[in-house]
Amino acid sequence: MTAITPTSSPVTLHAVDAPGQPDATPALHDLYRGFEQELLVPLWTEIGDLMPLHPSSHAVPHLWKWDRLVALADRAGHLVPVGRGGERRAIALANPGLDGRPFATPTLWAAIQYLMPGEDAPEHRHTQNAFRFVVEGSGVWTVVGGDAVPMNRGDFLPQAGWNWHAHHNATDQPMAWIDGLDIPFQYLTDAQFFEFGRDRISDAERITPALSRSERLWGHPGLRPLGIEHTAAGSPLLAYKWEHTDRALADQLALEAEGQPGTVEHGHAAVRFSNPVDGRDVLPTLRTEFHRIARGSQTSPVRETGSSVYQVFDGSGSVTVGDHTWSVTRGDLFVVPSWQPFSARSEAGSTDSDSGALDLFRFTDAPVFEALRLDRTQKDS
Amino acid sequence: MTAITPTSSPVTLHAVDAPGQPDATPALHDLYRGFEQELLVPLWTEIGDLMPLHPSSHAVPHLWKWDRLVALADRAGHLVPVGRGGERRAIALANPGLDGRPFATPTLWAAIQYLMPGEDAPEHRHTQNAFRFVVEGSGVWTVVGGDAVPMNRGDFLPQAGWNWHAHHNATDQPMAWIDGLDIPFQYLTDAQFFEFGRDRISDAERITPALSRSERLWGHPGLRPLGIEHTAAGSPLLAYKWEHTDRALADQLALEAEGQPGTVEHGHAAVRFSNPVDGRDVLPTLRTEFHRIARGSQTSPVRETGSSVYQVFDGSGSVTVGDHTWSVTRGDLFVVPSWQPFSARSEAGSTDSDSGALDLFRFTDAPVFEALRLDRTQKDS
Amino acid sequence: MTAITPTSSPVTLHAVDAPGQPDATPALHDLYRGFEQELLVPLWTEIGDLMPLHPSSHAVPHLWKWDRLVALADRAGHLVPVGRGGERRAIALANPGLDGRPFATPTLWAAIQYLMPGEDAPEHRHTQNAFRFVVEGSGVWTVVGGDAVPMNRGDFLPQAGWNWHAHHNATDQPMAWIDGLDIPFQYLTDAQFFEFGRDRISDAERITPALSRSERLWGHPGLRPLGIEHTAAGSPLLAYKWEHTDRALADQLALEAEGQPGTVEHGHAAVRFSNPVDGRDVLPTLRTEFHRIARGSQTSPVRETGSSVYQVFDGSGSVTVGDHTWSVTRGDLFVVPSWQPFSARSEAGSTDSDSGALDLFRFTDAPVFEALRLDRTQKDS
Amino acid sequence: MTAITPTSSPVTLHAVDAPGQPDATPALHDLYRGFEQELLVPLWTEIGDLMPLHPSSHAVPHLWKWDRLVALADRAGHLVPVGRGGERRAIALANPGLDGRPFATPTLWAAIQYLMPGEDAPEHRHTQNAFRFVVEGSGVWTVVGGDAVPMNRGDFLPQAGWNWHAHHNATDQPMAWIDGLDIPFQYLTDAQFFEFGRDRISDAERITPALSRSERLWGHPGLRPLGIEHTAAGSPLLAYKWEHTDRALADQLALEAEGQPGTVEHGHAAVRFSNPVDGRDVLPTLRTEFHRIARGSQTSPVRETGSSVYQVFDGSGSVTVGDHTWSVTRGDLFVVPSWQPFSARSEAGSTDSDSGALDLFRFTDAPVFEALRLDRTQKDS
Repeated sequence: MTAITPTSSPVTLHAVDAPGQPDATPALHDLYRGFEQELLVPLWTEIGDLMPLHPSSHAVPHLWKWDRLVALADRAGHLVPVGRGGERRAIALANPGLDGRPFATPTLWAAIQYLMPGEDAPEHRHTQNAFRFVVEGSGVWTVVGGDAVPMNRGDFLPQAGWNWHAHHNATDQPMAWIDGLDIPFQYLTDAQFFEFGRDRISDAERITPALSRSERLWGHPGLRPLGIEHTAAGSPLLAYKWEHTDRALADQLALEAEGQPGTVEHGHAAVRFSNPVDGRDVLPTLRTEFHRIARGSQTSPVRETGSSVYQVFDGSGSVTVGDHTWSVTRGDLFVVPSWQPFSARSEAGSTDSDSGALDLFRFTDAPVFEALRLDRTQKDS
Repeated sequence: MTAITPTSSPVTLHAVDAPGQPDATPALHDLYRGFEQELLVPLWTEIGDLMPLHPSSHAVPHLWKWDRLVALADRAGHLVPVGRGGERRAIALANPGLDGRPFATPTLWAAIQYLMPGEDAPEHRHTQNAFRFVVEGSGVWTVVGGDAVPMNRGDFLPQAGWNWHAHHNATDQPMAWIDGLDIPFQYLTDAQFFEFGRDRISDAERITPALSRSERLWGHPGLRPLGIEHTAAGSPLLAYKWEHTDRALADQLALEAEGQPGTVEHGHAAVRFSNPVDGRDVLPTLRTEFHRIARGSQTSPVRETGSSVYQVFDGSGSVTVGDHTWSVTRGDLFVVPSWQPFSARSEAGSTDSDSGALDLFRFTDAPVFEALRLDRTQKDS
Repeated sequence: MTAITPTSSPVTLHAVDAPGQPDATPALHDLYRGFEQELLVPLWTEIGDLMPLHPSSHAVPHLWKWDRLVALADRAGHLVPVGRGGERRAIALANPGLDGRPFATPTLWAAIQYLMPGEDAPEHRHTQNAFRFVVEGSGVWTVVGGDAVPMNRGDFLPQAGWNWHAHHNATDQPMAWIDGLDIPFQYLTDAQFFEFGRDRISDAERITPALSRSERLWGHPGLRPLGIEHTAAGSPLLAYKWEHTDRALADQLALEAEGQPGTVEHGHAAVRFSNPVDGRDVLPTLRTEFHRIARGSQTSPVRETGSSVYQVFDGSGSVTVGDHTWSVTRGDLFVVPSWQPFSARSEAGSTDSDSGALDLFRFTDAPVFEALRLDRTQKDS
Repeated sequence: MTAITPTSSPVTLHAVDAPGQPDATPALHDLYRGFEQELLVPLWTEIGDLMPLHPSSHAVPHLWKWDRLVALADRAGHLVPVGRGGERRAIALANPGLDGRPFATPTLWAAIQYLMPGEDAPEHRHTQNAFRFVVEGSGVWTVVGGDAVPMNRGDFLPQAGWNWHAHHNATDQPMAWIDGLDIPFQYLTDAQFFEFGRDRISDAERITPALSRSERLWGHPGLRPLGIEHTAAGSPLLAYKWEHTDRALADQLALEAEGQPGTVEHGHAAVRFSNPVDGRDVLPTLRTEFHRIARGSQTSPVRETGSSVYQVFDGSGSVTVGDHTWSVTRGDLFVVPSWQPFSARSEAGSTDSDSGALDLFRFTDAPVFEALRLDRTQKDS
């Protein structure tokens, strides 16, 4: 990232005549010099920026087109090796309002990862919480703590911090997926630890099962395996397969058609991926959800504290974030900064998806806000 | 604060030959140009900075001398009015590693606030959590939700976010104290809301009782008032008076002298200010503690994730933070960035305090880390 | 305790010469008469009974043969109508040590319920928590809060207190199942409320779907429906179907065969039915589990505070409770009183079940003990 | 239920013609004989008793006069030694509705304990949770886990289960106090463990400090000692001294006089003793409170699930429980069975207490009901 070079005194204050500011006299100027020398900054010159009436993020709404991400990722697949040091062939969204940092929002990382046929992304672990979501393709297994987890279209794979993980592409086709992590949040709060693992996983782990062991233990609805104690952070269920997500959403819309509760609002089905151990979010800092907006429906605009990244899984439609409205299609990624109103509309008569609906995968930093009692929601007009 | 001006594309990547980096060919250069155009940044050029082996804060250890803070604050008292807009005559520590921002650490705000005789700091409220700690002086009452809370030497006053508050100096002497807030944390995560209150509190609230109503309800040890339901965030006890803190610390050292458990380690007594409603921290994002290091004792060096700000309350001695060691005396403030080892030593034979001990008030962002399961501690050699 | 025969004064104390007892003098006799008149009882005559070294339940281990229960239930089906007042054709186990009360253990109720073709068990609700478990048969739907839940072999249906419920047999065959409730616990603690509902449910509720609405909302593993807020006690998932339980147990044994963790101990797979909202027990006072002991395996004896009732679902083998050992087969019910050692053995070469295993359904009052920190477990020799 | 007289078969059922009962035919008679032989009892003959519309406790409201309890206790002091086996010279209230058992209510034990000058009650521990409350007198120290806790008028001493404890009277006067325990609850649920300790505590523990160590660590309002980790059940604060309780109640009434919130209702101040570690009840199964009803005031009648025992600490007045109204004075004990309406009135112009108020100490099984979501409250007319 671009380097920020400190000056001899990093503090620079300007005494100006302005409403709410003290008179810009020489004495005030001297006072401000005194502040600078002591590495002090007064509240009254900064309060408008620091303590706005409502969240005013530097991040801006932005859309990234999937086809362009994949094209660049594929070129990188031919130019950039994967190995120890660089660790992952992952290319992150850099919000235009965040100074060139690879941050989708101030707290969220979103990247396309790309693995060429037969490649290995080496094993490591880190405190940053992560997940994978697959908009298309297959062929890669992620090995988490020795458990090989397959990746297929529509699958969601949570991976709490400090778990050993590696990826290997067992096929002759490249595969792309998105990674979501709390890298920016842990960077800004100085929370990070990282450890290199083995350069190569064992043959016993380089298997390609249809189901991970975690699913065989934890993937049965409402059933908890008594022989396994799970105290670590995050969900022990390492894959949430598409068939379940798809059916859950279809069931909600069917219930709505029957006049029964189930959907969030008319034509809008939604599920939150949850940890079977405690019913809470799959990861301590990241919430993940899947939303289906039925053909011809749209969601009510809503503002929330905290930020989100969405990926379009299927269908087409338009989304509105603040003053921005975009047409979106499969794979497209967009961000919703804190307190920006968001709504989505599914096109009537779309033939772009099996269900005719606009399907959106979402992740957000909401668990941080809720844990700290900073969460707010407001329905917008 | 110093303005950061974006360039036309905020992303700038350099293709360089370096270990762990791909070969710097023209094709790679073109690839990086492609990334820039699409507002993308690769992980492999940034991972060393983003995902270090352990926390590597930009914040640095630093000491601020109290006598200089007070002197500047007093000058400000004569030059800078307090009123609507500027809101508070508060002057914040600006860590030299944080680009001139008024942040003591990436998450913590620490400022000296100064109120001249008869002045009012107008009423407002904000989501940022706050507290006041008084190293010396008296004469100001903080009115929180209509409850007038006196401020005296050694008193700690928590004030959870979104509570209306104002200050008034009821005497003919100025008064200084420190404010601690999570302003940087809420700034970086885009969590903030702010609301102006009344320009002037009512006469019924402009009283000067020795005890706030909160203390008369919640300040009796182990007794919960059945007629009051408290569901808001933060402690309902608005003042933790010095006499209790002092006695609690003295009791721990006396118990140690009797061969009984009580102290954290030899010669080191410590209490955490806690919420009587649930026994947890007084504020959702800020932990506050008081440490007494007996004459001639020193604490074992320890590293913790998350950052702290300390103010010396009494006594003298030296503190070591990372590579920095300073002699400290009453009122001095210093910061401990994330994962920097910290220890304190109380001078043998000091006559600077009643107890002969080095007394330190501390606040930290530990509740954030614990809520998100990112907390780690390590005893250092 | 000395046998207490109620008299005009319900207290009768005997002054006897015995170790640990005071001398049986006339003065002592007078003292005891004084106690009786004032309705007082001394600790020292009762302590051996009241405060034993370890739990010494009045309940005893006992086995009830399913074939006899069904035979009696069927006779009752022809003699005893179901309707308002009697409410349910349910016949409860009465532990021989509990004075003829219809209590399987001091806290647990276990009964066979029997519904003839076309019958309705009328709607009511009560604070007592309940569940249904089906060892064989089908044809009855339980309507809980308007949601029609089918009942089939191996299905488990939790039903938290205060939910409206009714049953109707939609077929031309009678059906039997077992009910488990905390009736004794709520009776002894005086917690009970009861309300009559409609004599007849509506036609809209008298449907016979293959899935309840609750399963369509809550039965997808790890997926939480965002449009539904569930704050009531107990699980919102009203049926835990056999196919999931069976597969979960089979998966654990398969993992064991692969050398992976999953089973509780060798040859012993087990799941706990859990509430998807919080990962805890399905009911506040009742824990339910399913255990599969592979052919030729046996469980380690274990003692636990609290009591259990088991029903054999499939297979055959023997179970040992305290000094009692019985051969058991499908449908048999037995009780394990508090702190009695229990173990089960599955017969090698059994052809009585699909899996060759001994399958046991279990319910227990463990949540009461755990909530009150009274739970203990001890592996027995 | 129909009176059950244990016979060789403990189950006896009568076939009678009655509303809601099946026709009393010979076939039904045979069916009932069949039930008896199999140790079964039908729901329909028992449901009125087992599942009433609301709690219908066997326990009845009753008052015990303190002067008579003390008189009998003193006679016992001269006749009944204290020592290993009998363990304690404690004499318990036996509710006239509970068959002569030493149960004040189905879940609560209340007893007067009496220790003669110089006596020791030997050390033991048990899972039953306990506390002491002192209505008058002093001179005994309770040693809990080696910590000597003084006992004086108005002091409340919680003592969670499984803590070693003993008492010694260090003066030349006898002392009486009340013990409250969950003995009946643990008896009925078969939860009990008991262990004998040392016959005689050490000299180092036979001290008579004014404050226990627990108070010096945990008795400072809102301050948590960092050097002590407390994970055991129950409060670590072993004495809640009268001066704090008295002041807290006085403060609430003073706030009411100032027009501020604080009291539960007009003239009725109340505190709940709480665990500083988590803000919850001092014991897992027992809630303790102190109520002050100002001169001339009375409380609104209220019904609650669960039962209570009260002791009058000071003042005089009348209390009403269900259909019973009694005049009460210092030391008197009365019980409020589940769902019986309760109210108290303080006499105008009473000179029986320092405050002129009626002061009531209360304990109840409410934590059991709340943990299991069985708690209900209803204001009565």
